[in-house]
Amino acid sequence: MIFYDCATAPSPRRVRIFLAEKGLEIKTVQVDLRHGEHLDEHFRTINPHCTVPVLELDDGTRLLDSNSICLYLDETYWEMNLLGRDAREKAVIAGWNRDMEWNGFMALAEVFRNSSRGLVGRALTGPVNYEQIPALAERGRRRVKHFFAMLDARLGKSAYVAGDRFTVADITAFVCVDFAAWIKFDIPPKAKNLHRWHEEIAARPGSVK
Amino acid sequence: MIFYDCATAPSPRRVRIFLAEKGLEIKTVQVDLRHGEHLDEHFRTINPHCTVPVLELDDGTRLLDSNSICLYLDETYWEMNLLGRDAREKAVIAGWNRDMEWNGFMALAEVFRNSSRGLVGRALTGPVNYEQIPALAERGRRRVKHFFAMLDARLGKSAYVAGDRFTVADITAFVCVDFAAWIKFDIPPKAKNLHRWHEEIAARPGSVK
Repeated sequence: MIFYDCATAPSPRRVRIFLAEKGLEIKTVQVDLRHGEHLDEHFRTINPHCTVPVLELDDGTRLLDSNSICLYLDETYWEMNLLGRDAREKAVIAGWNRDMEWNGFMALAEVFRNSSRGLVGRALTGPVNYEQIPALAERGRRRVKHFFAMLDARLGKSAYVAGDRFTVADITAFVCVDFAAWIKFDIPPKAKNLHRWHEEIAARPGSVK
Repeated sequence: MIFYDCATAPSPRRVRIFLAEKGLEIKTVQVDLRHGEHLDEHFRTINPHCTVPVLELDDGTRLLDSNSICLYLDETYWEMNLLGRDAREKAVIAGWNRDMEWNGFMALAEVFRNSSRGLVGRALTGPVNYEQIPALAERGRRRVKHFFAMLDARLGKSAYVAGDRFTVADITAFVCVDFAAWIKFDIPPKAKNLHRWHEEIAARPGSVK
């Protein structure tokens, strides 16, 4: 297998932490997003969406997003299950992971991509160029605020995002918290549950990845 | 189980078709989105995200999005598998389904929610009100055009979206095609692969759901 990564980017970081938690080491190729390597002709043949992460399986199949990659790895390497063991648990974890992704990660990306000077004309990932929409960055800031308030409330009722054990939903949420620094969003000091949980997750060996 | 549905809405339609394809009949409660029943206090206790579909399991667990619901049903009722039978196939189908959802369904929703008169002040689903952003509707139209071109190209190389058999990714894509009529987007007549595939899927018994 080959893992196409970019060591500074939040999206493949979800897979990096996932791999570390599972104790897996995979041949890794760094893609230099800063210098536009993901938009090069060569990388387009690997992933026409021009994004990382990508996982290339030994039969040549390529998985083009974190969720598919994590699904493949969890179904293949059963130790340290992170996506659920039965139908009910799988569905509950998938639901929380989606919540973290849709309400958290995507809102953060909306702010970052629509306000960062380095991304003028590149407001969406992918092969097509789209101009930034400042109103969308503003709206994203409101969404991010609501997201972290919701997450703090959830972590007041539950040890981890999806329940009483660490799962992929914690990885997505953890990457969101650190991504928030990119848009200079400070987690409010009064979000005590979120800080408690973040401190715990940050101490896990995989989280530095 | 109880399925919370809205018979006119595209998002729960994904589950309706999924249920029909699996041959499952589940007690169904209609939620009247047009009259704002999803924003009522009662429905908020069922789903704080104020959206349908919702699947309530017999133990009271509630699944709050189509993907989690389909995952639960596919892992519970093995006949007529729609999400993949092994790790590789599951990951490939999940990747295509995500592509249909992210590049298709979400782009369509972006146009619809940011331009429809009935949704002024409600540009995103959920409990928080957000104003429409006209530039986002415009951008969405460009995205939708690219999406259908991409889908037509894919269906020129593959009988179905995720490969050589009907899967959940076809359901998501099929719902997208019909959702496109809501924003008055016509699939170009020259998109022959897309028309061939759409005709075939529309003839399946579940597709009227």
